[in-house]
This record gives sequence, C-alpha cells and structure tokens, in this order.
Amino acid sequence: MAEIKDIIAGRTVVRVDGRAADELRPTRITRRFTDAPEGSVLIECGNTRVMCTATFTTGVPRWRRDSGSGWVTAEYAMLPRATSERTDRESVRGRIGGRTHEISRLIGRCLRGVVDMKALGENQIQLDCDVLQADGGTRTASITGAYVALADALSWAEENHHIRSAAKVLKDCVSAVSVGIIDGTPMLDLPYVEDSRAMTDMNVAMTGSGEFIEIQGTAEHRPFSRDELGVLLDLAQKGNRELQKAQRIALSEN
Amino acid sequence: MAEIKDIIAGRTVVRVDGRAADELRPTRITRRFTDAPEGSVLIECGNTRVMCTATFTTGVPRWRRDSGSGWVTAEYAMLPRATSERTDRESVRGRIGGRTHEISRLIGRCLRGVVDMKALGENQIQLDCDVLQADGGTRTASITGAYVALADALSWAEENHHIRSAAKVLKDCVSAVSVGIIDGTPMLDLPYVEDSRAMTDMNVAMTGSGEFIEIQGTAEHRPFSRDELGVLLDLAQKGNRELQKAQRIALSEN
Amino acid sequence: MAEIKDIIAGRTVVRVDGRAADELRPTRITRRFTDAPEGSVLIECGNTRVMCTATFTTGVPRWRRDSGSGWVTAEYAMLPRATSERTDRESVRGRIGGRTHEISRLIGRCLRGVVDMKALGENQIQLDCDVLQADGGTRTASITGAYVALADALSWAEENHHIRSAAKVLKDCVSAVSVGIIDGTPMLDLPYVEDSRAMTDMNVAMTGSGEFIEIQGTAEHRPFSRDELGVLLDLAQKGNRELQKAQRIALSEN
Amino acid sequence: MAEIKDIIAGRTVVRVDGRAADELRPTRITRRFTDAPEGSVLIECGNTRVMCTATFTTGVPRWRRDSGSGWVTAEYAMLPRATSERTDRESVRGRIGGRTHEISRLIGRCLRGVVDMKALGENQIQLDCDVLQADGGTRTASITGAYVALADALSWAEENHHIRSAAKVLKDCVSAVSVGIIDGTPMLDLPYVEDSRAMTDMNVAMTGSGEFIEIQGTAEHRPFSRDELGVLLDLAQKGNRELQKAQRIALSEN
Amino acid sequence: MAEIKDIIAGRTVVRVDGRAADELRPTRITRRFTDAPEGSVLIECGNTRVMCTATFTTGVPRWRRDSGSGWVTAEYAMLPRATSERTDRESVRGRIGGRTHEISRLIGRCLRGVVDMKALGENQIQLDCDVLQADGGTRTASITGAYVALADALSWAEENHHIRSAAKVLKDCVSAVSVGIIDGTPMLDLPYVEDSRAMTDMNVAMTGSGEFIEIQGTAEHRPFSRDELGVLLDLAQKGNRELQKAQRIALSEN
Amino acid sequence: MAEIKDIIAGRTVVRVDGRAADELRPTRITRRFTDAPEGSVLIECGNTRVMCTATFTTGVPRWRRDSGSGWVTAEYAMLPRATSERTDRESVRGRIGGRTHEISRLIGRCLRGVVDMKALGENQIQLDCDVLQADGGTRTASITGAYVALADALSWAEENHHIRSAAKVLKDCVSAVSVGIIDGTPMLDLPYVEDSRAMTDMNVAMTGSGEFIEIQGTAEHRPFSRDELGVLLDLAQKGNRELQKAQRIALSEN
Repeated sequence: MAEIKDIIAGRTVVRVDGRAADELRPTRITRRFTDAPEGSVLIECGNTRVMCTATFTTGVPRWRRDSGSGWVTAEYAMLPRATSERTDRESVRGRIGGRTHEISRLIGRCLRGVVDMKALGENQIQLDCDVLQADGGTRTASITGAYVALADALSWAEENHHIRSAAKVLKDCVSAVSVGIIDGTPMLDLPYVEDSRAMTDMNVAMTGSGEFIEIQGTAEHRPFSRDELGVLLDLAQKGNRELQKAQRIALSEN
Repeated sequence: MAEIKDIIAGRTVVRVDGRAADELRPTRITRRFTDAPEGSVLIECGNTRVMCTATFTTGVPRWRRDSGSGWVTAEYAMLPRATSERTDRESVRGRIGGRTHEISRLIGRCLRGVVDMKALGENQIQLDCDVLQADGGTRTASITGAYVALADALSWAEENHHIRSAAKVLKDCVSAVSVGIIDGTPMLDLPYVEDSRAMTDMNVAMTGSGEFIEIQGTAEHRPFSRDELGVLLDLAQKGNRELQKAQRIALSEN
Repeated sequence: MAEIKDIIAGRTVVRVDGRAADELRPTRITRRFTDAPEGSVLIECGNTRVMCTATFTTGVPRWRRDSGSGWVTAEYAMLPRATSERTDRESVRGRIGGRTHEISRLIGRCLRGVVDMKALGENQIQLDCDVLQADGGTRTASITGAYVALADALSWAEENHHIRSAAKVLKDCVSAVSVGIIDGTPMLDLPYVEDSRAMTDMNVAMTGSGEFIEIQGTAEHRPFSRDELGVLLDLAQKGNRELQKAQRIALSEN
Repeated sequence: MAEIKDIIAGRTVVRVDGRAADELRPTRITRRFTDAPEGSVLIECGNTRVMCTATFTTGVPRWRRDSGSGWVTAEYAMLPRATSERTDRESVRGRIGGRTHEISRLIGRCLRGVVDMKALGENQIQLDCDVLQADGGTRTASITGAYVALADALSWAEENHHIRSAAKVLKDCVSAVSVGIIDGTPMLDLPYVEDSRAMTDMNVAMTGSGEFIEIQGTAEHRPFSRDELGVLLDLAQKGNRELQKAQRIALSEN
Repeated sequence: MAEIKDIIAGRTVVRVDGRAADELRPTRITRRFTDAPEGSVLIECGNTRVMCTATFTTGVPRWRRDSGSGWVTAEYAMLPRATSERTDRESVRGRIGGRTHEISRLIGRCLRGVVDMKALGENQIQLDCDVLQADGGTRTASITGAYVALADALSWAEENHHIRSAAKVLKDCVSAVSVGIIDGTPMLDLPYVEDSRAMTDMNVAMTGSGEFIEIQGTAEHRPFSRDELGVLLDLAQKGNRELQKAQRIALSEN
Repeated sequence: MAEIKDIIAGRTVVRVDGRAADELRPTRITRRFTDAPEGSVLIECGNTRVMCTATFTTGVPRWRRDSGSGWVTAEYAMLPRATSERTDRESVRGRIGGRTHEISRLIGRCLRGVVDMKALGENQIQLDCDVLQADGGTRTASITGAYVALADALSWAEENHHIRSAAKVLKDCVSAVSVGIIDGTPMLDLPYVEDSRAMTDMNVAMTGSGEFIEIQGTAEHRPFSRDELGVLLDLAQKGNRELQKAQRIALSEN
C-alpha cells in the first residue's frame, strides 16, 4: 500500500470517524442470525447493518430445467426506517425502483461469479439482503454478507445430501467494498456522510484470488483520470483482502 | 384465573414447548434497536421476532390538515425468509396481499385507540412492523412492540418540543395476544405449530385499564360457544396484563 | 332479551329511523335476482342493497388439487355511486384497497365456516358481493345474502349431479349483523349515520346453532368493557336469529 | 322501413326470441333505481340489464380549469357474473382490459356529443354504467340508459342552482343500438346468441334529430358492402327512434 | 369521384399543405426497414411515420390450441417524442391507456379481416406498429403498413415451409384512411392540424374488393347526416384505392 | 496503442465481421432524424440502431425547484422486434424490467457528467433512447448518440433564448463503448455474437479530455486481472477517441 500512502501523503485527512484514508470501518459478521433460512447472516460495517439470508431449493426456474446446472439470484431491499428519513415501501408504491433493481442484479452477478453452476446441479439459491440500518456501502456489505450466507447454505445442502460437495460449488470467495474521491483524496469504505460528498465513487467486488468480478465506477460529479483509478483500485484491493479475512474467521467458527 | 384452571383441570395439556395452557412465551423487548428512527424496538415473543419502528413527522396527510389533530398509521411486512419456506416479496409481486393489508390496518387501529389525537397536534406517527422471524403471533407481537416504539417516539417529540407532553398524548398502554382452542383446550399465546392446528383463534388487544380495543375471533374450522369465548377472554386478559408489565419494565430502563 | 332491555331501560333511545335499540332494519331477500349465476340474491337491509352471486365450478385451484376437498372464496366490491360521494373504481386505481381485501376475506371465512369441504368434493364456489347501495352494514348483509346464494348454488349442483347432497355440504346456516355503542347505548344493526358515530362497533357472524364464526370488535374511539361486550353479543344473537329466520323463509319459497 | 322489409322479404327469418328482423327487444327504463346518485337508472333491453348512474360535481379536472366549460366522462364495467361464465374482476387483475377502455371511451364521446359544455359551466358529470346481466348490446344499452341518468342529474343540478337550465345543457337526446348481419340477414338489436354469430356488426349512436354521433362497424369475419351498410343504417335509425321514444316516456313520468 | 367534386365544388378549399380535398398525402412504403423481423416496414404518410413489424411464430396461444387455426394480433405504441410535446411512456406509467388499447384492437381486427385462419394453420403473427413521428392518421397508416409487413412475413413463412401458401392465407389486401368534415368541408387523409379542428372524423378500413372491414365515425363535436356520411365514404373509397395501389407497387419490388 | 497490439500479437484474431481486435464497427450518426424533438439523432454502430431524442423543457421537477440548477434524465427502451426473438413490451407487462432501469440510469449519469447544471438554469432535458435494432452495444450507442441529441437541443435552446450559451452548459463531450475478453482475447466494440460469448465485458464512458465518467465491468463468467483491466481500458480509450471524432464531424455539419 506504499503507493496509496504516497499519493495521500502530505495531506491531513480528517475523516469524520477518525479512520485513516485506507482503513475499513469495524466489520462484524454474525452467522445463524435467524433460524429458518439455510444461511442467515447479519453483517455490520460501521453503522450499516444488513441481514443476508440464503434459501436453498431443489429444482431450478423453468428456463433452466434439464440443463444440469443450478442458479443463484439475489434481492435487495431497505426497511423503511433504515434511513434517517423514512422511505416509502416499494410494496406500497407497487413497483420496485431503479436503484433496487440495479443493486439486486449486481449482488446476483457477484455471487454467481464464484459459483460453479454444474457442481451446484439443478438447485437454486436465493439471496435476500435486507438493510436494517443504512450508513453507506449497503450494496457492498450485502455482497460480503451474502457470500457467508451462501457458504452456510451450501454446507447445509451438503449435509442434507442435496449436493455432493459445498467446496466444489464455491470456486472462490467474494467480497466488495466502496472507494471514492472526497475533496481530492481517495478513501476506502465510505459512510453516508462521505459517500454523499464524493465526486467519484466506485464499488469493487473481488475474489479471494485478487481478481475483479465487478467494477462499477461512477463520476457524475467529476470525471476521474486513469491514475486516480489506479489508486482507487489499490484501496479496494486492500479493503477486500481484509473483508475476506473477516469472512474466513466467521466461517471457521462453529 | 380460577375459572381457566377449572375448565382445563383434569386434562393433561401437553404443549410442544412445555408451557402451561395459560402461560406466555418468554418475551423480550429491546429498545433503541437501530439508531435512525425516533422509536426503534425489537420484540421477541418466543421465536417470533419483530422490528418495530416509529417515525415522527410534523404535519399530517392532506385530508387531515387544519383539523388541529394528529394521525397514526401502521405498516406490517414479513421479510422473505421470516418463514420456513421463502415467501415472495410483495414489492416484487407488485401488490400487497390481503393478509398484509388486514394486519396493517389492525395495528393502526389498536395504536390509535390509545392516542389522544388533539394532544398530538398536527403531527404524524408512522409505525413499521417488519417480521424478521415468524413463529405465530406476529400481529399481536407487532402491536405490543409498536406501543413501546410509539412511546419512545413521543418522548423524543417532547424533548424536541414538537409536542407539549408525551404523557398527555398516550391515554393508556396497549398490548395484544393470541388465544385459541386446540383439540378442545383453550390456550394462550400460540406458536405457529399450535396456531395451524387451532380450530378457533382470537387476537385480543387490551388497554392497561383492562378494556378491549380489538377482538378478532375467527372460527373457520369449528364455531365456538359463548362459554368458550369467556374462557378465551380470561386467558387473553391474563396474557395482556403480563405483556403490559414487560412494556412498563422496558420503558422504565434508560 | 330481558337483559338487553334492562340495561337500556330508563334511557330514551332516539334512533333516526324510529327503531328500538334491539330492532333490525327491514330485511328483504330476493332469490334469482339475475339469471346466469348458479345462485343470485339481492339482499336489502334498510337502504343497504347488496347483490350476491354464487358461481359453482367443477375443479379447485392448483394448490388444492388431489385433496378430495372443495373450496369457497368471496370477493366484495362497491359500485362507484353506492355511496353519497362517488368512490373511484379500484380497477381504475389499479389496486384493491385494504378495506376491500379485509371484507372479502371475512366473507370467505364465514361461509367456509358452514361448508363441509369433503362433502363438496373437488368443486369451487366463488361468492361475489357487489354493493349497489351502501347505508351501513354492507359486510354483514353480504354474509347473510351470500349464504342464500350459496345454498341455491348447492341445490343447483345437486340437481346437476355435481355433488351428492347439498344438505350434507351445508353443515349449518350463517348470518351476520353489526352492533355498536352509540352515545353509551348499545344498538343493533347500525345504518351509516349511526355507524359513523359509534365509539365501538362489532360485526358478529353466527351459525344457526347459535355459535360464533367471527367476532370483529373494534374500539378505535373508546375501548369497551367486558360487560358492554356481553350486551353487544346479546344484541347480535337476537339479530342473527331473526336474519336466519328470513333466510329460511326465502329459501323455502319456490 | 319499406326498404328493409323488401330486402329481407322472401326469407323466413327465424330469430331465437321470435322477433322480426327489424324489431327491438322489450326495453324498460327505471329511474331513481338507487337513492344516492343525482341520476340513477336501470335499463333493461331484453335480458341485458345495466345500472347507469350520473354523478354531478362542481368543478372540473385540472386540465379544464378556467375554461368556463364543463366535462362529461363515462366508465363501463361488468359485474363478474353478468355473463354465463364468471369473468375475473379487473380490480383483481390490476388492470383494465382493452374492451372496457374502448367501451368507456365510446359512451363518454356519445354523451358529450349532446352536451353544450359552455352551458354546463365548470361542472363535471361522471357516468357509471355497470352491467348486472349481459345478453348482447351492453354498450348500446349503456348509452341509452346513461342519457336518462344524465338528464336527471342535470334537472337535479338546475333545482339545486348549480346550472341555469338543464334544457340548455342538453342539446338533443342520444341513444344507441346494435345491428348486424346474421347468415346474410340484416337484423336489429342483437342478443348474445346472435351477436356471436354475426359476420358483421355495428353500433350506431344517433341523436333525436336523426343524425349520427358514432358509427362503429366491424367486419372481422366478412367484409360488408356499401349496400349492406345502407340497410344496417336503416335498421339502426328505426331502432334509435323507438329507443328515444322510450327515453321520452320515462323522463315524462314523475 | 364526380359526386365529391360536386359537393365541394363552388368552395375554395384551402388546405394547409395545398392539397385538394380528395387528395392523399404523399405515401412512401419502405420494406425490410430492419433486419430481424419476418416483415419490417416503414410507412410514411406525409409527416406521419410508423414502423410496422410482423413476427411469425409457430404455435398459437393456449385458448386457440388444437383448433387447426392461426391467430393475428397487433400492438400500437408511440415513441415519447413522436409528438410535439413529449408523452410519458406507458411502460413508465405502468399501464396502457385507453387510446392505445383501442387502436391496437382496431389494427388487429382489420388485419384478421383479410386472413384465412385455417390456411394459416396453428401459427401466430404479431404486428407491432410503433409511431416514430405523428402527424395525424397514425392508426390508419399503421393498418396500411402492417398489411405489407404481414404479406412479407407470410412470404417468409412460405419460403421456410411453415405454411403452404401465403396467397391462400391472404384473402385480400386491406388499407385504411381517415376522412373528416372541417369547417363544413369533407376532406381526405387529415394531418394533425386538420384532425384537431374536425367536427366529425372517420377511419375507414377497406379491402381490395372495395368492401368495408371497419368504419369508425365519431362526431363528438357535431353530429353528421346520412348525406355527409355518403360523401365521407366516397372520399375514403378513393383514398383506399390509391393506398392499395401503393401497397401493390411496394410488394412487387424485390 | 502499441501495448494492445503487443498483447494480442502472435494470435490470429478471427472476428466474425473481419474487424481487427481494436477496431470499431462502422458508425453513422444522422441528425434531425425526426422533426418534432429539439434534438433527434439516429446512431448506427454496425447493425445496432438507436433513435435518440432530446426534449428541452423550461422548468425542473418539483424537488429541484428554486435551486437555480437544471436537470437531465434519460429513458431507454427496446422496440419489440429490435431483437431476433420478439420481446414483450414493458408497457404490456405493466412494469419496467431491471435491465431497462439499469441502462436508463447509466445513460442519465453519463450525460449529466458533462452538463453544467448551473449554466443550464432551471430547465430540464429528457433523453429518450429507443432501440430500433439491437446487435450488441445498445447502451453505449445510446450514450454516444444521446450526446449529439443533447448538443442539438442546447443549440436550439440558445437560439430560442432559453439559455445563454450552449457551449457553457456542455463542459465536455461524452461517448461510450464496450470492450470484452472473448476466448482470452481483449476486443473492442462487441456485436451480439461476441457479447454473448464474452467471459468479461465492460462498458466505458469517457469525456473528450480522456477521463472516465463510468466504468462498468462485469465478469460473472470469469474474473479478470488488473493487467487485463489495463488492456481493456486501452481499447476503450481508443474506441472513445474515434467515436468522439464521429460526434464532432456530425455536429459540424449543417
């Protein structure tokens, strides 16, 4: 991380919560948060709290039948008072908003990126990520937490003889983190207060082997250069390495 | 409670969880469960867990303006894996089901029943009850928990000078509990396994002063007699007294 | 009914329409109101007029197949000018409101409460209750009228050899009536003008054998005591006995 | 009508209900069918029965404000068992079908065709046509009945000083009737059994002065010639003259 | 056309675009406008431009199965900026408006009117008419253009051995044109500026043999007489003859 | 571009359409494609054809009022037969799918990224991108085409004195292109046949100054390394430079 430190050297970075520019918020992963789901995880990244459940079902949607392969989908939602102002329920409005759709699709792609569909066989896993409290980074926390719920659901499926080997289904682990440029300084893992001031922000999902599954960088407020991109990816790499360590520790506990 | 005991005397009541016929499940009320809402409560009744938040907003809906009075509404929902089989999201289906509508309206009426709308002034309180885990009695747990969230939101509003006195707004407390007849035996506070076998079941919301706000008895599977009704109401009275004690204890803590 | 009269003795009850506190509105039941349905009834309770049709179909919904049992459902709706101000159509609004859902479910439960599903066999009955004119008590009139339409549809099904015996399918009759407390006085069968002033009101569905199928008491405006509940149930019992007599007379005519 | 008779001379027209080819079904118009609406009419054309209500409201929709002119709209719907097979409610399906939309718009245009919007002033009339029983010609019966409801609503508005003169608002009367070619024979006022066999059918709305407001001829099954069109219009002219007589008689009664 | 000219003789008809009262706008039909559809046509009638595609699919909707017959449907839509003011998308509004429904149904009926469903066999053709630019007459242009796309799709189906003979399926050709009375003068093929001033307007779809498939005349603003109807039909006949010539020329090109 | 060539050197890249790995498809930009919109562009990238219109309206949405700033939004849609199999209309399905939402939001962000909202003043621009024919890269073609439509709409607004200076509003130009790795080879501007085989694909929107506005890389099928990312961005940079040249040429024509 020498480069990051160099770039942001000489500056006095004052983050609201006292963190260094390349420091993650405290992350806590609680498995078996509720009883019914095959995988049930509460992930807390700072004040952001997401409940991630994984539902294992035998069989696949119609369009996937007789393919010998499985399927993984995800749905994301916010409880109405996850945010400081109450948000109307999408069920009440009668339609799912663009943002929700976009995030649900992102989570699904990331998790599918580490699953061997052939090894899963004709079974389906549905990931539900419900934000209990939102303070920035809810989509990345969802990905990181959903991975742990997915791993638990696969272990359950192996124990219950629905699949041969959970280890074969999971090709790698996956986590995600946000990075952004605030007042010219690249920073890791943005809480809401930073996120809303970021000129550029990027969500980066990476595998345990250090490769990218998704990069979503958006710079509506100020385009970013190729050099800035490099620094942001360095930060994301550091953050994801640490999140994957937290996933491993959580999964090693019984 | 002498009568209840008499009626169910001579029988060996075997409840799955070892409780007596007139015994509540363990109840736990956690205040300040999340940070953003003016009132945020996690209520646990056995394995049923509901997150209840209260949102205080100045101003009332258009139809209520210039009345000098406030308004209280409620919305109820289940997370997809609150149940043992996953339930599709109502936001995805694009419409709210009849059961959800019915329960949301019930919760709203019960809470309005203890609020002095004039004393509330032109302010609105929205109660959101989201079931994290469902094991019977989710609507009654929602009422009991929402009351505590409502009380907290009113205290917040008093401290922030939006209302004169929280005590004046809350005319009384309110709680609710289910009762039912299973294999001929009247029982208090039914978990899912009992609820699904009940021939008759009833949800009873009562005030601290021992009066009824709502009685909803349904006997699709076997009509009930006036005598049986009497026993069920005795059980409900006992249960609500105990739930209101739990509310008082929770609210007395700081 | 001695008790009721005692309780409301010394008071001068002035009802808008000159009725005694424990008196039903004039009730008229017209069978074969339209030609197409297997059962078609117009029920008039005072100025409230509801058209109730029963549709008999062989076969049951998918989830009920191969159970050997039948199913009964109900749908309730108001014509736009059933009320003094025009109400927008729910088809135009694109969604069914909470009140409609709640009442449709109530009617369904009440009618299912008197049907032996095994004796019905794998056949379905759909009850449609459309309010032509609303003056309070539309949901209870719907239940009372739907029972007669249901009985006619079952006779039709017997005659057409879809079921063995209509008498075996119908375990009992069912009717419903509203009761409420207006200015401290318990009253039977509330028209709109009383209903809107009621502090407490209750809808009570009872079988011919005098047992309860549904009790829905709501006291958003003033909780009620156990004693008041007793008087209200007495009134409901009297009203339902009389409504069931009207049902019997209607059904005995050819 | 000499021409019609000539054309269909030598043939033995056997109509299911024994009518002559140029004969209307018995038509009955009942005013004040319900109490609440400003105009409320039950129109019966043979077995087709439609309840038509007219709602008068002061004020116009936003897009019409400050124009000094009024507005007239119509909504058409069928009760679920108006037909021999039950039709799902459009409120339940969550959307209004194309046929309903098409007919509602047709009724609206026809009635607007006889209203002087300036004389109506900034007031709105909503016509609701709900089919209680359908046996062909529901849309034309709706137009014929809605005219009477509209006339009653305008008289009400004049009596209540919302408009100066009902007579000035209504420029003319309007009625509508269906005609069609069945097995080569042109016929007037088709019941369902004929309508479903018609190769060509046409709905014709005419004013009291004998002019056309709407002609909707459709020949999905066999195109029609200009000569056939002539005969169909002759029949429609005869039918509408008689329907307008029935309207006049109904409106002359008190 | 002598009669038309007689009727509109002595008057100086000043049409915005300099045309004679009985003159069509320049019509251009471009086949193979896009590559994917079995039939793809751009039709331009003056400034009105509609893209018409025909999709041929083997198999029919469920309700049509095992009938041995095919089916033809149509859907019409406008791009948001086809009009001078932007129109909200119906997909965004979440419902299809009445006008769209009405026009889609009209197009479907007209095209079905020239198709022999038995000869088509159990195959389906879906016609999509999307208005790129609207200047009056979009529904009639859609019918005229859809016919050409339909013919191309049937040729494709014949070449690909899905049907025996395109010629047998198409019983005749069909086109449509609008006519109307503007300031008392009957005119052919109205652009938007005339259409919006027309007191009466009529859309007339005719076959190549000169018979009518649809006549939709509407006179919301001023009823029309039988004589005026005659002149309008004469104009429509002339217009359709010319449009059918344009169809023939387009289809004869390779 | 030396690096790209090095990496893909020794390999014989066989692209379906004979292009080199770093070669764009032929791009054609037609301005004033339709008459009504303030900006109307047809962009063709190979066989992909998108109609992009820009609607300029004075005033902004409610939430933006009195901010002194303008707003830019975008909506994307596909015509039903843009694809080789017909896609159901989202208006008919009654809801907008996740993919449509995601792309509409992407286009909006990219275009907002080059607009100075203060200089735009309280005016709104709505971009509509409707895909007439789809052969891969429809979202990137939409961005590239929408920019030209936006530029035209701003010129129109300047000429009509709604804004001071179009040049001040447009801070830079923007274009977008897809890149991906097919069978291990990084390639520029993927048609459908390549896109569907790509293990990794990325959409990259860049400004004229060579900075990034959006990077959306997704690797559901095979994660990609930091080195591969580098090559893909080199390709995207080359492609965007060429697209921006095409934009400039198009805009310089009169």
